[in-house]
Amino acid sequence: MKAEPAPALLIRNATLKLEGNPILHDFNWRVEQGERWFILGPNGAGKTTLVKMILGMAWPLYGAEVSVLGNRYGACDISEVRRKVAWASPFLSSWTAETNTRWTTLDVALSGLDSTVGFYRKATKAEVELAYRALERIGAKQLADRYFDRLSSGEQIKALIARALIGHPALVILDETCVYLDLCSREALLGAIDDLANGPDSPTMIFITQRIEEITASFTKGLILGEGRIQSMGSRAEVLTADNLSRTFGIRIRLHKRPDGRFWPVPE
Amino acid sequence: MKAEPAPALLIRNATLKLEGNPILHDFNWRVEQGERWFILGPNGAGKTTLVKMILGMAWPLYGAEVSVLGNRYGACDISEVRRKVAWASPFLSSWTAETNTRWTTLDVALSGLDSTVGFYRKATKAEVELAYRALERIGAKQLADRYFDRLSSGEQIKALIARALIGHPALVILDETCVYLDLCSREALLGAIDDLANGPDSPTMIFITQRIEEITASFTKGLILGEGRIQSMGSRAEVLTADNLSRTFGIRIRLHKRPDGRFWPVPE
Repeated sequence: MKAEPAPALLIRNATLKLEGNPILHDFNWRVEQGERWFILGPNGAGKTTLVKMILGMAWPLYGAEVSVLGNRYGACDISEVRRKVAWASPFLSSWTAETNTRWTTLDVALSGLDSTVGFYRKATKAEVELAYRALERIGAKQLADRYFDRLSSGEQIKALIARALIGHPALVILDETCVYLDLCSREALLGAIDDLANGPDSPTMIFITQRIEEITASFTKGLILGEGRIQSMGSRAEVLTADNLSRTFGIRIRLHKRPDGRFWPVPE
Repeated sequence: MKAEPAPALLIRNATLKLEGNPILHDFNWRVEQGERWFILGPNGAGKTTLVKMILGMAWPLYGAEVSVLGNRYGACDISEVRRKVAWASPFLSSWTAETNTRWTTLDVALSGLDSTVGFYRKATKAEVELAYRALERIGAKQLADRYFDRLSSGEQIKALIARALIGHPALVILDETCVYLDLCSREALLGAIDDLANGPDSPTMIFITQRIEEITASFTKGLILGEGRIQSMGSRAEVLTADNLSRTFGIRIRLHKRPDGRFWPVPE
């Protein structure tokens, strides 16, 4: 008898408070390995807190279960788990600015190996090879030698996704990756994310956004988070409805559909 | 014979280089007092540099003219001019976080009087009255006593716009004010900006964005900036065309029109 593979994420009965205020309420979620989920939610819905909980940086109240890639938090070495979970966020780009060193895109990708911001040692030949492959996966190999602080916002976030991918993580969290991008850079990045999602050895992926039009058809399951609770959860078609979105954002929304399955929300 | 009123902005032959790289090329622009302009442009177009030039924080090459509210830079006291020009940007909200003091929304609005970030003295009764009026103009009076760092992103940017309005500026620059906002907060903020634009004593307004759907009908004139050059300039109807936008963003765009004149750009 073969054992079932562990889910990529299993969260049960998670209630999480910050300074006494409940941020997540009785949160229950199961993500199977290889699935690609979107998480949609307005400002203050609890999206960032959820990421912190998955990374083991914020803890729910007693009685909850948080298991990541089969490892139950509280009964495992979280630093081991974190090596298999990668998080890419545009907020990381400002951290690199603070180090006062000029990092190349290759340095930024390499820094994912040590989970540092900036790369503070000499890379081995094998590591450089890994970094090039990570950059290639997100379509950014040609940026390798350029200075990170000279890249456009769209190029920077590609470098940060490569940084997330270098260790071949089992779970990748893409956190508001399009927030600073213009139309053209956003479409280019979404295309690269789709290629990654549909390519070989695609990791389990979680795509967090507050913009409905960014959710490509690669993300086949999803949930809407509102005020720390799951407002809707299921297949893409079940979750992305005008009714659900109107309720979530508190204004009437009409959805303008594009043939490839993306939706543009137009307030009525 | 009555003298013509000075234009709010007059920029002639402005070429501006940073570290030897041209950021703005031969820029020519005239804004009459009371007009409401949008500036649209992709990442790296030169929008921020243009704002810096208007604020006297970046200077074009010799031979250019920059006149703000009738004052020609190089032949006036720029600090006097700056008092009449207000700039609101969400990037200001992170500066307040760095001061390690808990400012109320009223403090943030008051700080506009001294052009500081945070308010470092006791306000007079008249000044507090001004702050309340500025908050009221942007629909945020009820936030006065709340801590700024506890507000949502949408509430914070309203406080920062109130900060910009407190000195009754003649020229208001709203710089990517919606970038962090979810659908609902964005619509609320755009409604408040429209009320300000169409209310009594509306200042000259410049609305900078890279998102076409944020440009409400209040902004009747506009320009598209691309690679430091004006790609298109004129009335709202002349500038916001699918052809112009496709050229600017380098991808084919179809415009989904809403009856009130707003456009949603859908890449083809």
